[in-house]
Amino acid sequence: MAKRPQSIDRLTAELARMPGIGRRTAERLAYYIQSLDNDGARKLVDAIREVKTKAKACSVCGNVSESDPCPICTDRSRDTSVVCVVERVRDLDVIEASGSYHGLYHVLGGHIAPLEGVYPENLTVAKLLKRAKGGPVKEVIIATNPDTEGDSTANFLVDKLAPLGVTVTVLARGVPAGGQIEHAAQSTLAGAIAGRRPVSAK
Amino acid sequence: MAKRPQSIDRLTAELARMPGIGRRTAERLAYYIQSLDNDGARKLVDAIREVKTKAKACSVCGNVSESDPCPICTDRSRDTSVVCVVERVRDLDVIEASGSYHGLYHVLGGHIAPLEGVYPENLTVAKLLKRAKGGPVKEVIIATNPDTEGDSTANFLVDKLAPLGVTVTVLARGVPAGGQIEHAAQSTLAGAIAGRRPVSAK
Repeated sequence: MAKRPQSIDRLTAELARMPGIGRRTAERLAYYIQSLDNDGARKLVDAIREVKTKAKACSVCGNVSESDPCPICTDRSRDTSVVCVVERVRDLDVIEASGSYHGLYHVLGGHIAPLEGVYPENLTVAKLLKRAKGGPVKEVIIATNPDTEGDSTANFLVDKLAPLGVTVTVLARGVPAGGQIEHAAQSTLAGAIAGRRPVSAK
Repeated sequence: MAKRPQSIDRLTAELARMPGIGRRTAERLAYYIQSLDNDGARKLVDAIREVKTKAKACSVCGNVSESDPCPICTDRSRDTSVVCVVERVRDLDVIEASGSYHGLYHVLGGHIAPLEGVYPENLTVAKLLKRAKGGPVKEVIIATNPDTEGDSTANFLVDKLAPLGVTVTVLARGVPAGGQIEHAAQSTLAGAIAGRRPVSAK
């Protein structure tokens, strides 16, 4: 059996690191990229470099933005008394797209998962507690994913936030349990935001 | 609603061009790439550039290779009297991986699809006919995908190849009809290669 070119194998391996991209998909993409004309390949490389040089995490909320603070944090028309905590920037994107939320955000950078080596100190938890302590924040909406890790992250945050005197709410379980916020319909998200309920520490 | 950074949108658009990558997957990958450390992003960019500079289509068979002709075309232990015609390099890869074929290959670069603007002159058909005419080639195995476009491409090639005096065979329909060669099990491919049958022009 003839061996594949090393460069194809190497690109396949790099692509297979990406979330949701299996080995076969990575192979197909590697051959696709090899088959691009030089202009197409240059555009792809330029887009990757541009995203790495221009887009950075907002130093306030963790949103990915080309300005710092991000346009949401600096938007004076938004309600600065509410902070919505999400795991990932794409969760923020879909909540924004639902048009039903006008406060600020806080991107955790994931969920607590000790088995995967992700502890609160690997997330932006300390920054969140600092934002919630004093300042204009009166309510923190916890919008972690409605799955096991998201729920235990939410429980952890409730215990940390409640003593700070802010109202802590969680999204109404209108989002289908076991699913991902990213894939929720806009109407589901709108309902979940409208039906959020207060919770207190155990 | 706040807008996403342009650089994220641009990378999403580039990624969404890739086969089988929808808009949501492309968005997720764009954010993943943004979140890579500089070393990770550099590795990805380097792998893309390397595949573009090092891997080229073999001038004989169209296989993607870092040498020209490719290692299969220059392998003296292979049977140069048989040429297996495939649509894509990844079809060649899986046939190679099945270990049941020891002849040469010819990569068409796709299938004939007039509605998508793909005519025989957009594929390596002329090169195939030249290889089949004179020279050591005695048999051409047509291993296009067992779907509508693959079958009509196969019919077209049979009509062109038969008058040249070579034996033209097609893979036994052991590959599930309507499927893709790329996803076939190795045993299915081995059976299909063993059971190939001669065909003649209508």
